[in-house]
Amino acid sequence: MALLQLTMVPMGEGVSVGDHVAEIQKSLEKEGATFRLNDMGTLIEGDIQELLTLLGKIYEIPFNNGTLRMFTQIVIDDRRDKEIHIGDKIVSVTNRFSNEKQTT
Amino acid sequence: MALLQLTMVPMGEGVSVGDHVAEIQKSLEKEGATFRLNDMGTLIEGDIQELLTLLGKIYEIPFNNGTLRMFTQIVIDDRRDKEIHIGDKIVSVTNRFSNEKQTT
Amino acid sequence: MALLQLTMVPMGEGVSVGDHVAEIQKSLEKEGATFRLNDMGTLIEGDIQELLTLLGKIYEIPFNNGTLRMFTQIVIDDRRDKEIHIGDKIVSVTNRFSNEKQTT
Amino acid sequence: MALLQLTMVPMGEGVSVGDHVAEIQKSLEKEGATFRLNDMGTLIEGDIQELLTLLGKIYEIPFNNGTLRMFTQIVIDDRRDKEIHIGDKIVSVTNRFSNEKQTT
Repeated sequence: MALLQLTMVPMGEGVSVGDHVAEIQKSLEKEGATFRLNDMGTLIEGDIQELLTLLGKIYEIPFNNGTLRMFTQIVIDDRRDKEIHIGDKIVSVTNRFSNEKQTT
Repeated sequence: MALLQLTMVPMGEGVSVGDHVAEIQKSLEKEGATFRLNDMGTLIEGDIQELLTLLGKIYEIPFNNGTLRMFTQIVIDDRRDKEIHIGDKIVSVTNRFSNEKQTT
Repeated sequence: MALLQLTMVPMGEGVSVGDHVAEIQKSLEKEGATFRLNDMGTLIEGDIQELLTLLGKIYEIPFNNGTLRMFTQIVIDDRRDKEIHIGDKIVSVTNRFSNEKQTT
Repeated sequence: MALLQLTMVPMGEGVSVGDHVAEIQKSLEKEGATFRLNDMGTLIEGDIQELLTLLGKIYEIPFNNGTLRMFTQIVIDDRRDKEIHIGDKIVSVTNRFSNEKQTT
């Protein structure tokens, strides 16, 4: 089970990329993906092969809308020893952090 | 004003890195930084020079705790045309997304 | 035409990852991919859909060799306005750099 | 000893960023840094604190030349168990790769 963070940076356009990001969100919703927007991109969870197939679909959206060059960053955290879902790590560290503060 | 996402991946250790992340959170709190944990790392906001100074301090934490090798990824979104804060982009895209859904 | 830089960081293992990287090189050679190892990972060139298919194949190699968790970073530079190949950018910037030095 | 790969993507400009990259190279040369351009950015080697100081200097170059928004990606591979230099990993994996081919 993997978490994939996708950050697309179209070049040669305006400074704002919100329209592209909104298009990608719509497409992910249509595909039935489990995703969450964060400050640096869009986080999607799933099996890696499914995620790569999904990526192949949404990747073309900015180019279809006229983008000529795009810099894309993808980060994947893939664990085979346990299930991981969006939000899990935040809860886990926050708990650890609060416990330490209580006991200090 | 910049947003910086910091992801530290200690190598040669166990599969879990939550303890390191919790240590970094504590240090950021002590430094009075504006930050938020997300699924891929820790997001910090501020002026870039302040962020780099802060980074120099917290970067050593895992090494001080025994890490021998660390892979670090830093992503910075820096705008000089307007103020940006953690959470702003999510609100902006979500609004755009909801508006489109209402008008469709 | 895109350039894709792939960096795989297996976690919960030793500090050295050279064996995994060598396995990936062998697999890329077998697949007939155009690639070059650099200091931060492996650079592959091609059409994005072909690159994603290739990625789906080589991604599993470390897991097949026992890795339990892996952090992966992928960076893609994709231009639709002209052909780009591995090494092109280095030549382009180096030329610009040398010309400036000659004329200064 | 660390290797740092710096990739700067100015937004709201043309599709080409070669001029910015050439400026950064000039600045790194002036600072006496040990660096090498690769297909995804500029690789610099050194002690992490020196690298962050250097980064603080060159980071402003595109903004000084009029950039309004910039997406920056930094990747750091930092080993405390042995010296690492630009090019070392490529040699190490290439040797492993050739040896396997000879013995197969």
